[in-house]
Amino acid sequence: MVNKSLLKLVVLVTIFSISIVQKSTAQDALDKAAIEASMIKALEWQEAHPIFALAPTDWTEGAYYTGVVRAHKTTKDQIYMAALKNQAYWNNWQTYTRLHHADDVAISYSYIYIGMNDKRKGFVDLEPTKNFLDAHLYEDDVWKQGTRKNEMGQTILWWWCDALFMAPPVLNLYAKHTKQPKYLDEMHKFYMQTYNQLYDEDEQLFARDMRYVWKGSKKDKKEENGKKIFWSRGNGWVLGGLALILDDMPKDYEHYSFYENLYKEMAARILELQPEDGLWRTSLLSPESYEHGEVSGSGFYTFALAWGVNNELLDKDVYTPAVKKAWNALAKCQHENGMIGWVQNIGASPEPASYDSWQNFGTGAYLMAGSEVLKLDK
Amino acid sequence: MVNKSLLKLVVLVTIFSISIVQKSTAQDALDKAAIEASMIKALEWQEAHPIFALAPTDWTEGAYYTGVVRAHKTTKDQIYMAALKNQAYWNNWQTYTRLHHADDVAISYSYIYIGMNDKRKGFVDLEPTKNFLDAHLYEDDVWKQGTRKNEMGQTILWWWCDALFMAPPVLNLYAKHTKQPKYLDEMHKFYMQTYNQLYDEDEQLFARDMRYVWKGSKKDKKEENGKKIFWSRGNGWVLGGLALILDDMPKDYEHYSFYENLYKEMAARILELQPEDGLWRTSLLSPESYEHGEVSGSGFYTFALAWGVNNELLDKDVYTPAVKKAWNALAKCQHENGMIGWVQNIGASPEPASYDSWQNFGTGAYLMAGSEVLKLDK
Amino acid sequence: MVNKSLLKLVVLVTIFSISIVQKSTAQDALDKAAIEASMIKALEWQEAHPIFALAPTDWTEGAYYTGVVRAHKTTKDQIYMAALKNQAYWNNWQTYTRLHHADDVAISYSYIYIGMNDKRKGFVDLEPTKNFLDAHLYEDDVWKQGTRKNEMGQTILWWWCDALFMAPPVLNLYAKHTKQPKYLDEMHKFYMQTYNQLYDEDEQLFARDMRYVWKGSKKDKKEENGKKIFWSRGNGWVLGGLALILDDMPKDYEHYSFYENLYKEMAARILELQPEDGLWRTSLLSPESYEHGEVSGSGFYTFALAWGVNNELLDKDVYTPAVKKAWNALAKCQHENGMIGWVQNIGASPEPASYDSWQNFGTGAYLMAGSEVLKLDK
Repeated sequence: MVNKSLLKLVVLVTIFSISIVQKSTAQDALDKAAIEASMIKALEWQEAHPIFALAPTDWTEGAYYTGVVRAHKTTKDQIYMAALKNQAYWNNWQTYTRLHHADDVAISYSYIYIGMNDKRKGFVDLEPTKNFLDAHLYEDDVWKQGTRKNEMGQTILWWWCDALFMAPPVLNLYAKHTKQPKYLDEMHKFYMQTYNQLYDEDEQLFARDMRYVWKGSKKDKKEENGKKIFWSRGNGWVLGGLALILDDMPKDYEHYSFYENLYKEMAARILELQPEDGLWRTSLLSPESYEHGEVSGSGFYTFALAWGVNNELLDKDVYTPAVKKAWNALAKCQHENGMIGWVQNIGASPEPASYDSWQNFGTGAYLMAGSEVLKLDK
Repeated sequence: MVNKSLLKLVVLVTIFSISIVQKSTAQDALDKAAIEASMIKALEWQEAHPIFALAPTDWTEGAYYTGVVRAHKTTKDQIYMAALKNQAYWNNWQTYTRLHHADDVAISYSYIYIGMNDKRKGFVDLEPTKNFLDAHLYEDDVWKQGTRKNEMGQTILWWWCDALFMAPPVLNLYAKHTKQPKYLDEMHKFYMQTYNQLYDEDEQLFARDMRYVWKGSKKDKKEENGKKIFWSRGNGWVLGGLALILDDMPKDYEHYSFYENLYKEMAARILELQPEDGLWRTSLLSPESYEHGEVSGSGFYTFALAWGVNNELLDKDVYTPAVKKAWNALAKCQHENGMIGWVQNIGASPEPASYDSWQNFGTGAYLMAGSEVLKLDK
Repeated sequence: MVNKSLLKLVVLVTIFSISIVQKSTAQDALDKAAIEASMIKALEWQEAHPIFALAPTDWTEGAYYTGVVRAHKTTKDQIYMAALKNQAYWNNWQTYTRLHHADDVAISYSYIYIGMNDKRKGFVDLEPTKNFLDAHLYEDDVWKQGTRKNEMGQTILWWWCDALFMAPPVLNLYAKHTKQPKYLDEMHKFYMQTYNQLYDEDEQLFARDMRYVWKGSKKDKKEENGKKIFWSRGNGWVLGGLALILDDMPKDYEHYSFYENLYKEMAARILELQPEDGLWRTSLLSPESYEHGEVSGSGFYTFALAWGVNNELLDKDVYTPAVKKAWNALAKCQHENGMIGWVQNIGASPEPASYDSWQNFGTGAYLMAGSEVLKLDK
């Protein structure tokens, strides 16, 4: 009798144990069902915890919903499209308000994507996006004239590297969707201004803005270890933005190779800088400043590198292990309830994050990463 | 030492067993507490996952919130009224926009119900509903003139059977709430047009629209098995709508018996067509097309049949077992998180569903079913 | 056979232990991590279940978001600020509509707090609050003239005791934030009117309104036990409001001592009336009417008493045990999913609550209580 009871017990316990084991399997290898489940949990938590800096149309939401777009593009799961349409409807398809500020059109990446995928008559409204882009590109502004004088020496439209995520992918996608290459040309013009000002060819990284570009003076900002300050999320904006751009840019566009080369160069540098545990620190050249992985920058890198592998721009054998390591580490930053922690707060330079620090754009970065990791060959 | 190991085992097994037991309790019998809990989980999941075709005032939301209304009507749980008021407030009591399209007033069923139950001064606004209904009924339109010529041959206001869920219950409830029988008379006039065009007296089912009515030509649409195409959800709209109508129609209304007879006739046919496992297939006469139960149609049937039992229009002994079987099968389509799966996507004819396919109106159908199943004698 | 009995035993013990362990960890001591977790669960549940009487700007939301403010003020957890900003944005910083009704400006407590803590340019808009307050204080009204004749004999602006929570803390905070003492002076003028009409010096409690003030006639309302009717939540509004006021009132304000003395007097009386299990009944002098604790009144008392201990207005040794007992009992009213039960519905006099009865302002009271309990020395 003992044996029979014991047998039943053991059978049940075994079933139970299997589910335990499955969980751990989900995180040590790329179990696609587990990745999808994790992404949905991240979405659900974020939707239940709306947050923004200034408005639901601001750049923080723009970055988040760009992540939702990419999750939908890969999985076609309507849970993402429902969230996309819901925000667009309640935002009334508006951009945020500062027409000459790249941040305020980031949300349009989601609007254009919805427009490309939902053909119901009278639902999508891309007029506000068009109006923003035209004012952004063609209206005169002190920023474009080089006459603005402030402590940051802003003399160009996209004077901070984050801007390369906020506006260029939108212009690129809008050009594709509306078949108007002029938006791509304008994008390139302004992109080059930023590249010329902020790209550090030696380090193959972007300074956040002119305050971080060394001028050979004693006042040059530097880390305690004497190195230049390169912000992880700032470079994540650029590299993630490059993958977004390349994904929709015509391969025969005359400047395609510029973006491709820049992407490859930065990708190689980012790979080189990846810490042992898979997640990048907020200060790329001074990882010891805040000795922990940070999710928003790392999420954008993971997205960008995985995208490169999936699209054969990067060497699969070299980059895949790095991407897997990064994803597994990212996934460990997700709380049981779905929240994505270890996200550096809104800022402009390396600052620490914590287990509990979250932001919508961090969730966006996580979704972007997952969307490409899902496509890796196992 | 055996005992210590045994103890550990048993603790684990117990935890595991508890969750097993809970599940079976919820589904093998009509445990009313379990049904209420399941309905609330469905509501909560749906509220956390807003979805619509065109707007939060469209027919998909209309059908969903009709389910929320019925859940509240039965249980009086304020969790439903809170959700009803919240959507009405943010929708500003608006219908959707096409005044001659039945779909766009379905949401008003919820507005009128709130108006009948919340007496706070200045909260409820039924003006947009009244304006819609008056335009819908009294304004001239090509649809009503039989002059519209398109591939579907639409010559009447409610030219597709879904419309019989969207507008008639609203007109019926508005007539009752405002004590204006003229709305009921108009409803009947247009209902008869649809009945005359789309009701198949042989099959005692509704064709979805004129495309599915056989004209004795080679071009008549048919299933692979040679039978007519009768869509489960389409007939669910009609039968569910009939129960809604009868529930609020004065018993002495001159055409009451028409609706009563039609309801009984269809109910008998639907009972006959119920598959062994309790849930109807998307193609009623060709269940083999997609060999799985579908929740939106089945939910409306379950609601309608249970309503008939509860209101003594149907034979309790004959229909109760069918209703219980259907409910238990519906409840198994609910995911652990509350989501109602196995709902056919937006469409106009039989298509497959899946474990993961969900829509707000599917949740609405589930709530409607539960609201009447709760009232069955055990 | 030993094994079979053992199995049963262990199963039972396990079930029992699981629930015991969960509860006792959370509730038998002031474990601050557990309190914070419980508060966040309450917030999350409430955010997922929006409810209001008339609008998201009404007093029910006002009281709820006052709780969210206090939770943020203590913890600085951005989960609270995200919720605060989200509602303010979608409410467009509007008050509710009746400019001479204290209820309709309660929501502004949250707006002003956001304004004091979020310095992003162009985000906060306190104009509607200012407009309300000016109309409220300075416009003529029948209520202020003593000419209104209704069954309640309203002759003053704040003719019901709840009003002392709705408007005065807002005026006090607005005066502080904008450095305009005139709002404080006006507050005091109207506060004294209410105090003079409704404060019962013998009982050291507030009548809800003139209907409950004894005039020495046979028609005086009384409990079945012959005592005066003092409503728990009504006095909770007053005592909670006093703690809010004192927290931001300049200590050198000429009438500071009036509020301090009133606060101490009521606090002493409320302590005296605390039932053995820690939670106050809805009828303070007739606890036997509804023999169960009620959360909204008890939450406000717990907040107010804990605030007094933390700010050295109350004797720590006397009040701390009462506060701890009250908090532990409050925490037991929280459901596993985060919902705060045992909240009396909207009303104006003692009525019963139940395990399942919830309201946003009940959640607000819970958050207020938690926000001060967190600051107690262990």
